[in-house]
Amino acid sequence: MATDKILDGVYRALCTHGYAELTMQDIADECDKSTALLHYHYDTKEDLLIAFLDHIITDYEERLAAETDRPPTERLATFLARFVFAPDNDKRESFHLALLEMRSQGPFNDRIRAQLERSDVVLRETAAEILQDGIEAGVFEPVDTDRTAAMLVAALDGARTRQITLGEGQPDDTYTRVVVEEVLDQVVEPLLADSVELPPLDAALEDLSRGGGDS
Amino acid sequence: MATDKILDGVYRALCTHGYAELTMQDIADECDKSTALLHYHYDTKEDLLIAFLDHIITDYEERLAAETDRPPTERLATFLARFVFAPDNDKRESFHLALLEMRSQGPFNDRIRAQLERSDVVLRETAAEILQDGIEAGVFEPVDTDRTAAMLVAALDGARTRQITLGEGQPDDTYTRVVVEEVLDQVVEPLLADSVELPPLDAALEDLSRGGGDS
Repeated sequence: MATDKILDGVYRALCTHGYAELTMQDIADECDKSTALLHYHYDTKEDLLIAFLDHIITDYEERLAAETDRPPTERLATFLARFVFAPDNDKRESFHLALLEMRSQGPFNDRIRAQLERSDVVLRETAAEILQDGIEAGVFEPVDTDRTAAMLVAALDGARTRQITLGEGQPDDTYTRVVVEEVLDQVVEPLLADSVELPPLDAALEDLSRGGGDS
Repeated sequence: MATDKILDGVYRALCTHGYAELTMQDIADECDKSTALLHYHYDTKEDLLIAFLDHIITDYEERLAAETDRPPTERLATFLARFVFAPDNDKRESFHLALLEMRSQGPFNDRIRAQLERSDVVLRETAAEILQDGIEAGVFEPVDTDRTAAMLVAALDGARTRQITLGEGQPDDTYTRVVVEEVLDQVVEPLLADSVELPPLDAALEDLSRGGGDS
């Protein structure tokens, strides 16, 4: 579909140009379309960017929905592994940097903020559901799932923001890798019922890289 | 000093106008000076903003240095409490939103990034030192202090970013309050030696509000 190609173009244009100075021409160039065609589908640049945010959140929801039949331990490992950025993944860092620029506009733009809130709820509800399913299955100890989910999401988001905005002054390894490993050790490990283990982080990462679920 | 008044003006101008569209005139207006005087002290707007970042990081370092004779349990409670944003502190949120805009420029601006890296190192080293002092004093269990510090800083930063960029869709209470409470319960509590307790969060918050150490 033309709109799919346009939305792919938005992704590449954000990686290359960032958010603040992005033009419809940049997006048109990235998807080999005319700005007239872009405007045929989307009245304004803002409409197109909102459609793009909606698209990536929906895509993320669909990937999560496809995992719900897997054991809660695997889903939790995958949920955390998705936040590990390899040190050399410049494209992914550029993209999340553009998203960070957009996030700082949330308070001034109701439509952006509505998408950010939706994304936040998806993340927190997913983490809470995984924990709840695990508690019901007897693999996790009982815990306040909503509050634990908020802490997990905050730690993962903070690690990502610091990794993409800082250069040299990072912890050894990358920020996201260190934080996910410590979350596994210090937050998740104490929640596991006796003799239950999570898949190793590297296995979850390999699994994701095969499935292409890394954006 | 004239420069102190100018730097206070930068703070107020960032709260009011944000970072992206801030002008020297905005800053001059906030501190009742002429732009000529601003340029007498700082060649460019970038020079002034870098001086401002340097100033707030140095200020934070000095506040932390003034606390080093307090017990590690109190220092850890205060360190965490500093990240709790009251729901109605609009000025503080506006300021951190402007900082978030600046942070997204880190990868493109060496001087901004150098200040961000310095701030990151100050935060992580402070948390690691508090933990180390507590381990040596026998009040905290042994733990990898650097890695635990990275996780704490990431969780606090992520909670703050989410609180300032989201509106309605927050966890009950505020994001920062929920995350700090969960960090205390799930990360700090297991590190405490037998019969050691941290001061309650509300006591630490009250202490900070008396000392004015809340920015």
